Amino acid sequence: MAWQNKQNRLLHLFEYTTVRYVGTQNKKIGLLYRIFQLTIVGYLIGWVFLKNKGYQVKDDTLESSVVTKVKGIARVNTTDSNLWGPEDYVFPNQGETFLSIATNFIETPNQKLGNCSENPKVPNNTCSKDEDCTVGEAVRAGNGIKTGICLETHNGTCEIYGWCPTEIHRDPHPATIVREAENFTLYIRNFIRFSQFNFSTSNVPKENRSLYLKNCLYDETVFPYCPIFRLGDIVNKTGNKFEEMALKGGSIGVLIEWLCDLDVDSECRPHYSFVRLGKLSEKIGFDFRFARYFTTAGQKQRTFYRVFGIHLEIMVFGMARKFCIIPTIVNIASALTLMGAGSYICDVMLLYVMKKRSVNTESKNDKEIPLQIMPESLKRKFSL
Amino acid sequence: MAWQNKQNRLLHLFEYTTVRYVGTQNKKIGLLYRIFQLTIVGYLIGWVFLKNKGYQVKDDTLESSVVTKVKGIARVNTTDSNLWGPEDYVFPNQGETFLSIATNFIETPNQKLGNCSENPKVPNNTCSKDEDCTVGEAVRAGNGIKTGICLETHNGTCEIYGWCPTEIHRDPHPATIVREAENFTLYIRNFIRFSQFNFSTSNVPKENRSLYLKNCLYDETVFPYCPIFRLGDIVNKTGNKFEEMALKGGSIGVLIEWLCDLDVDSECRPHYSFVRLGKLSEKIGFDFRFARYFTTAGQKQRTFYRVFGIHLEIMVFGMARKFCIIPTIVNIASALTLMGAGSYICDVMLLYVMKKRSVNTESKNDKEIPLQIMPESLKRKFSL
Amino acid sequence: MAWQNKQNRLLHLFEYTTVRYVGTQNKKIGLLYRIFQLTIVGYLIGWVFLKNKGYQVKDDTLESSVVTKVKGIARVNTTDSNLWGPEDYVFPNQGETFLSIATNFIETPNQKLGNCSENPKVPNNTCSKDEDCTVGEAVRAGNGIKTGICLETHNGTCEIYGWCPTEIHRDPHPATIVREAENFTLYIRNFIRFSQFNFSTSNVPKENRSLYLKNCLYDETVFPYCPIFRLGDIVNKTGNKFEEMALKGGSIGVLIEWLCDLDVDSECRPHYSFVRLGKLSEKIGFDFRFARYFTTAGQKQRTFYRVFGIHLEIMVFGMARKFCIIPTIVNIASALTLMGAGSYICDVMLLYVMKKRSVNTESKNDKEIPLQIMPESLKRKFSL
Repeated sequence: MAWQNKQNRLLHLFEYTTVRYVGTQNKKIGLLYRIFQLTIVGYLIGWVFLKNKGYQVKDDTLESSVVTKVKGIARVNTTDSNLWGPEDYVFPNQGETFLSIATNFIETPNQKLGNCSENPKVPNNTCSKDEDCTVGEAVRAGNGIKTGICLETHNGTCEIYGWCPTEIHRDPHPATIVREAENFTLYIRNFIRFSQFNFSTSNVPKENRSLYLKNCLYDETVFPYCPIFRLGDIVNKTGNKFEEMALKGGSIGVLIEWLCDLDVDSECRPHYSFVRLGKLSEKIGFDFRFARYFTTAGQKQRTFYRVFGIHLEIMVFGMARKFCIIPTIVNIASALTLMGAGSYICDVMLLYVMKKRSVNTESKNDKEIPLQIMPESLKRKFSL
Repeated sequence: MAWQNKQNRLLHLFEYTTVRYVGTQNKKIGLLYRIFQLTIVGYLIGWVFLKNKGYQVKDDTLESSVVTKVKGIARVNTTDSNLWGPEDYVFPNQGETFLSIATNFIETPNQKLGNCSENPKVPNNTCSKDEDCTVGEAVRAGNGIKTGICLETHNGTCEIYGWCPTEIHRDPHPATIVREAENFTLYIRNFIRFSQFNFSTSNVPKENRSLYLKNCLYDETVFPYCPIFRLGDIVNKTGNKFEEMALKGGSIGVLIEWLCDLDVDSECRPHYSFVRLGKLSEKIGFDFRFARYFTTAGQKQRTFYRVFGIHLEIMVFGMARKFCIIPTIVNIASALTLMGAGSYICDVMLLYVMKKRSVNTESKNDKEIPLQIMPESLKRKFSL
Repeated sequence: MAWQNKQNRLLHLFEYTTVRYVGTQNKKIGLLYRIFQLTIVGYLIGWVFLKNKGYQVKDDTLESSVVTKVKGIARVNTTDSNLWGPEDYVFPNQGETFLSIATNFIETPNQKLGNCSENPKVPNNTCSKDEDCTVGEAVRAGNGIKTGICLETHNGTCEIYGWCPTEIHRDPHPATIVREAENFTLYIRNFIRFSQFNFSTSNVPKENRSLYLKNCLYDETVFPYCPIFRLGDIVNKTGNKFEEMALKGGSIGVLIEWLCDLDVDSECRPHYSFVRLGKLSEKIGFDFRFARYFTTAGQKQRTFYRVFGIHLEIMVFGMARKFCIIPTIVNIASALTLMGAGSYICDVMLLYVMKKRSVNTESKNDKEIPLQIMPESLKRKFSL
């Protein structure tokens, strides 16, 4: 008896209680509910699963290591040298995610430490008498320290102590463009790692590596995975002309995108694209300055360069995906709860409709009730 | 007849079945449910839509390119030079997201390769006899290779072969602070790109660009978008005094935050802030070493510098947002399903309440039926 | 009377309507529902709360600042020097998240500008007659500019103008390995910041800082928080032998992971790990080139180095978590709505089951009842 009681209780544990369903003949609400169901299913299949791959977990925090090498030789005409190798035109020399390649320059040769007039183009530096030039004060954005003398013969600028003569201020000239730079080649080696999946790879194809690297040159259609790029091609792909960009310099983003579906394709591969940084209309240049020091006849001198160049910023981003049972379940469950919400909304609408029309008229149709009178419609409801 | 049958079926497809609702007079549960509904609506409007802008898609993986330029001239007193320009005090010379500006230094002039005693401040380097100094072994964190001789007259340290005399070990001195550094200006150019929206911009205002850049200086209230910063201002904004920080150096994070609501404001603009890196109480310094080589009378010599400086780390982060119909729908739907969950919770509570009090008292109000006939199974349903 | 009416209405506001539950004796559906409920609770507790800490907000966009310092002295045998300090073997000199330590090299001494034959190993550079060598054209990936002469005696390569003799092309030799590099020490200082929580810290332990730093050396078990690493140890931990890696160079990722639970442990600490970058099977080397210029007897010369080295990429990542009431509520609510979805699914299944068996048997238990008896309360329920 007690045993039977216990068994009875156990059986009760697996009883299932459900709510009572009522069929209504309100066609509008019914149609609405169908549309809603279709939307949810479409959303689940189309957006969640196909578009956003809801059955996979994502890792979009990739770790990246970039090494770059530039090759090419250029003839130049400076007081210093007549041939530039990568040691001379790449800044910084052991660059990683960014590097600048000199394509034009303004040279101020043979500067020596001494007194001279500040360049009149430096702002806020005019004077009319010596008192305007405070001794020992540095000129803001200028080239030296004021000596306290106002040189009126030179457009009224303060005399400075610094590297003299001061840097030549002029616009860059097309004649000094390093024309060979168009054919320089850039080799980018990019290691990436998705730490969540403990997956790492590189952008250098592994088959016949050394042979491939000696012969290939990146081309969207022929060699889309070759990691060697011609500088002229990079500039052209951003929609700019090499001559124009070489003149005043410019910043280019080299985008390396990794979209790795680790379920389908263990050979996850990079996609390269190139954009000029900044708004297209502006065409902001890129320049920087450096000096080369030397000693002539016991006196320290320097040649000062303002260099215009193509500044490459290598931006690596991407995402890896892998199947995981948890998000799959969660997404399906969410969609089903959305369906639940759908019937909730339909209830609300039904009630408003019922309030407007006589509620009774509606309910007469479903003299009652129960489930057994409408198996047909129910079947349809859930058969979708 | 068959046609009518078909039509009938079609009509059935748009029938809507709903659950039956029962009104109860339980005020507490009713109140609870109202509060819950209000909370959900408040959550939806306040948190999801107003605070977290749930009607927009976000992209928080911005790509950034930073170029920096420092300007300013300083008088210094080294054996090497008496004037420093940016070429001399900025490390590295073509920096990007990080750069160090020398503000103090300890100079060890005229080092030559040869034998001398290791600095006694180098740890784990004491000796009492020659056998303690293994020939050819390098001193850990030291300045040379042991020659195998123990120099007892010099505090018992091993003799080394290296650049002699060894680097001067002392605390940095306020007298050598580069005072002009306070007025150095830092120009930061920052291109950003939100690849998801294909939107890119820069921190340099585009109207009257060259004129603006010549005259402006960053100020939170007057020029909040001027990309030129005075070094002294940066230090002050971190809550430190320039003289203190210049003495031993320090690391400063220059935070550039981009919060771009691409719906409202196509002119998305940066916000600058400055923090000293590390815990405020610690005030960790910043220093590094470098050498300048020269040849005097055929012998190679070098001047060795330990440089203390202000190390700037430019950290760019942010988020772009844009209206998108999908998240809007999803968020509203989620909130509605939450409401569904609310009635579920209320049901649970109602059942417990009913169990305690006599179930009948409740149910009298709603003539008929129901709940009292199945308390057992219901209890179990929610007792899990 | 009006007052009573008002009160009545107010009371109605707190009425709660619930759906009618029906107990069924379908054991299979009951069991299924129990399993489903257990799954949801398990998911909520196990996955959402314990595994993913659903009661906390996360910030995984940490901002990081890295400063590195290498110490150690090595004897080398170059034409230039016989002792290398960090100034000589670390590239770039003021590195941050990446640095290379030279461990082997191929030296091409005393190059001068002039004419010589291009190296025959440079691809696509063979010629059989002078016409094959276009005057003024640069050799791709070569060392100079073609002079227009084909030197048949030298394997048929074009004569070039450049730094002569051209770079020696050979494999790196074990004899030139910088053996002391194994004992070089690397100090990594890493400041991090979680901007969302305004929390910042560094990897340098703050207790007895200077004493600790002088004596400690990173070891997974003894000194897991010591920020000073022996280069040999780093290489070994990646599963490589130092001699092998020093020969041809290689890239190593130094991973610093910050997992900060700001609720439990305000002392959030880093975890270090080391991986060789790229696929393990490949063992890609790492090398770069640089030149040292000097003037002998009025003529500019240079010594050219191809350097093989250990390239360290310091990758900082991590996540901070902190308790927040909002996600806690949202997660619980989501799980409850999932339960709602569960009963929805069970309903669907029940209906299919019911269709098969006779529906009538079920419905006998619940005699009754209509929607039309409670329109008032229902209206209020949805009028909010």
